[in-house]
Amino acid sequence: MTGHPAEAHLFIVMGGRGDLMHRKLLPALYRLYLNGQFPAPSKIIGAGRSAGENDEYQEWAIQALVEAGHTQDEALERWVRESCFYVSVGGELGYQALKNELEDLEEQHGLPGNRVIYFSMPPGAFPSTLEALHAQGLNQSKGWTRLVVEKPFGYDLSSAQKLNALVHQYFSESQVYRIDHYLGKESVQNLLVFRFANAMFEPLWNRDRIERVEITVAESLGLEGRAGYYDKSGALRDMIQNHLTQVLALTAMEAPATFQSEAIRDEKVKVLKAIRPIKPSDVVLGQYGRGGTDGWPMAGYHDEADVPPTSTTETFVALRLEVANWRWQGVPFYLRTGKRLPRRTSQIVVTFRQPPVALFPHTCAPNQLVITLQPDEGFDIRFLSKAPGEGFEVEEQKLTFRYKDVHGALPEAYETLLLDVMNGDPTLFVRSDEVEAAWALYTPVFSFERQIHSYPAGSWGPKAANHLLPEGVNEWGTR
Amino acid sequence: MTGHPAEAHLFIVMGGRGDLMHRKLLPALYRLYLNGQFPAPSKIIGAGRSAGENDEYQEWAIQALVEAGHTQDEALERWVRESCFYVSVGGELGYQALKNELEDLEEQHGLPGNRVIYFSMPPGAFPSTLEALHAQGLNQSKGWTRLVVEKPFGYDLSSAQKLNALVHQYFSESQVYRIDHYLGKESVQNLLVFRFANAMFEPLWNRDRIERVEITVAESLGLEGRAGYYDKSGALRDMIQNHLTQVLALTAMEAPATFQSEAIRDEKVKVLKAIRPIKPSDVVLGQYGRGGTDGWPMAGYHDEADVPPTSTTETFVALRLEVANWRWQGVPFYLRTGKRLPRRTSQIVVTFRQPPVALFPHTCAPNQLVITLQPDEGFDIRFLSKAPGEGFEVEEQKLTFRYKDVHGALPEAYETLLLDVMNGDPTLFVRSDEVEAAWALYTPVFSFERQIHSYPAGSWGPKAANHLLPEGVNEWGTR
Repeated sequence: MTGHPAEAHLFIVMGGRGDLMHRKLLPALYRLYLNGQFPAPSKIIGAGRSAGENDEYQEWAIQALVEAGHTQDEALERWVRESCFYVSVGGELGYQALKNELEDLEEQHGLPGNRVIYFSMPPGAFPSTLEALHAQGLNQSKGWTRLVVEKPFGYDLSSAQKLNALVHQYFSESQVYRIDHYLGKESVQNLLVFRFANAMFEPLWNRDRIERVEITVAESLGLEGRAGYYDKSGALRDMIQNHLTQVLALTAMEAPATFQSEAIRDEKVKVLKAIRPIKPSDVVLGQYGRGGTDGWPMAGYHDEADVPPTSTTETFVALRLEVANWRWQGVPFYLRTGKRLPRRTSQIVVTFRQPPVALFPHTCAPNQLVITLQPDEGFDIRFLSKAPGEGFEVEEQKLTFRYKDVHGALPEAYETLLLDVMNGDPTLFVRSDEVEAAWALYTPVFSFERQIHSYPAGSWGPKAANHLLPEGVNEWGTR
Repeated sequence: MTGHPAEAHLFIVMGGRGDLMHRKLLPALYRLYLNGQFPAPSKIIGAGRSAGENDEYQEWAIQALVEAGHTQDEALERWVRESCFYVSVGGELGYQALKNELEDLEEQHGLPGNRVIYFSMPPGAFPSTLEALHAQGLNQSKGWTRLVVEKPFGYDLSSAQKLNALVHQYFSESQVYRIDHYLGKESVQNLLVFRFANAMFEPLWNRDRIERVEITVAESLGLEGRAGYYDKSGALRDMIQNHLTQVLALTAMEAPATFQSEAIRDEKVKVLKAIRPIKPSDVVLGQYGRGGTDGWPMAGYHDEADVPPTSTTETFVALRLEVANWRWQGVPFYLRTGKRLPRRTSQIVVTFRQPPVALFPHTCAPNQLVITLQPDEGFDIRFLSKAPGEGFEVEEQKLTFRYKDVHGALPEAYETLLLDVMNGDPTLFVRSDEVEAAWALYTPVFSFERQIHSYPAGSWGPKAANHLLPEGVNEWGTR
């Protein structure tokens, strides 16, 4: 795949020696370079508090690309040495060192002063970094300056509001790209195409035809050594407030007036604002205990390194939401996420109402549209078909489409999103009012009386989550 | 597959040495026997005008089963010798011989007097055979007597009415099974399940959502030595009036009040009666000329054995119909059939209207539901999906279901239909008012000024057929 080159710019990563830079950003930038989308005069500047030299940083960057599956050849090494630089902001000069480096590089390479500043550090460092950048006048430049902010954006409604206020002191909203990597997934973006380019699904997409919607993001992994971050966050902040809520918004939104970013984000915010306040009876929280199988036992959350013995952090959330607007009133939306579930999968399961009259015997299975976001991206329609032979016995079958059968591997979410930042397209980023609307929805949940259901690692979560479903439905659509 | 056994009976085939008996009926009866559905005390009686002995007939029957793919083993031979008998009605005794044989067999084997009488002879012989059966009192018996009539049922409206009147002189309508083997196909029956067991398709199935419906039954074969029958009949009588019209009726009918045969047939008749009279501009007739390729040249219709040099018999028909009822007014239904088309296929292509607003660039392809009746039975939904990579380019993809992926080989249409006759289920047979409604629709076409378009053998028919389609549509959905 080759694409149009973005405008030449400096790509500055605050937290430039971090895990995200190593695993995601550097490989994505290199692939964009290989695709001709991140043009050669552009440079990457990793900034961090620790001291460091370019040589050593470039070795680290080469290592990142090799670990991402690239062969360490001359071309790769040359690109890294010509493109990747490190600046310490922890020294005497502080952020002045960064400013100097940026100006030097722009002058040396005749760059027009376009800059991406990517916040990839712990959220506690956001305010001081914003202040420091502003003090050096780095919130603007001769060209454009765009600020990318990684999750978590705030910790609850009031912290998100404060952070937005601080960001807006130095940057206009049009400069800010709040990243949610879920929105970079091809299959998530395709929700918009699926819904608004296909006339045959739209008449079905409402309370008259749909019984319920279930959105599941299941992880098979456990904590993976991230207790420091995760135990303070939990699944509601880490997954529900951002990824699942974004998927919900794309699933439920009205058709935008145009396909411009503001029109789309307007419609997403409308959905979030139409969701009824969450009641304690709509939420089930869980935490994994010891589980797995005899052959493959799994530790419980409390056994993981650095988890406080009294931690009640939720590793599982199931929620019932109601979007109280003309399209959706009365249709329950179920969100579910968890660590240490049986497998990694993200799915939207739309269950349609039964026919008004059952003409055939034993027609219990309702039609379902299953949209798989990962790992095996595609669509399935579960419908009823005649069983061969005598009479009119029916049975459930599937109409199936899989991206990989047509396209092979899809681009990584980070590739898509970094390119959008470089091209100044904010469609797939979360606007300030959107992030606040999401926090407004979930913040009350933190003050509910906290009941944590234990579930065995490797299971589909606590049984209590099934009680959220309508009467007669015993299991979530994703199994 | 094993099923419930039908009641023991005599299965009498008038035209018992014919091609249909050899290729279809005997193999179907044997498979029903193997499945336990045609129970052992039942007997098969072939009746014909020519002299013949049981021994010789049984050899012929064994040959039929071997040609259908069965191994000639002891079990097969024993079944034929115990089950298959021949009676000549051309001798001195005439139909008295048949009556005697039936009564003898019923007495010998303690049979309850149930009889299927299957008309598998040239339609010219129908009236005299009906008279002769009646003269011997064979229109009824101690048990049930059911009459199965093969196509063509009449030649036009008045001949069909006369034939119905004659049949009804001796048989009640509930005894009569007008067979259309298309209705025995699993995929055709599944139209009813697909439409009425799946709530998600019904809201789309009307003039608000559907742009047009195309039904194609394409044969790759030419005349295959059947000029004697075919040249007098033509494609309109041989295919359109029965098979394609039946498929149209199942596609367009309203949901029946119950799944009882009369309720279903009532709805089918209502569709036929709602079709507007056909105008000359709605019809394109064709006849294949020489064609094929250099490597594989194909004869034209006039080159085929026994075709009169001046024949204007149509081997291709394309039609535009309008079902003028609340559901379908304004939606064109296109029927198309022909011999010597590029491949054998039967498909229903339902094209949905475009979305009211095109949000994406280049979204020209409308959604289509493609129901394949043969040879590769299944469903496809052609929908638009996001092309991977930058922006929101869309491309057509397919959701797919194929019976053979799930079920392997499906039962033959004749198996299904013979079993229905044995079980007294007339759902899949054509009622007298239905056959007359179909003839009422097509009979005026015979009096139109006859314009026959030549098309090369191996092509998709005359170009003129494409002019029936709506403006901007250049090709039929089945290619």
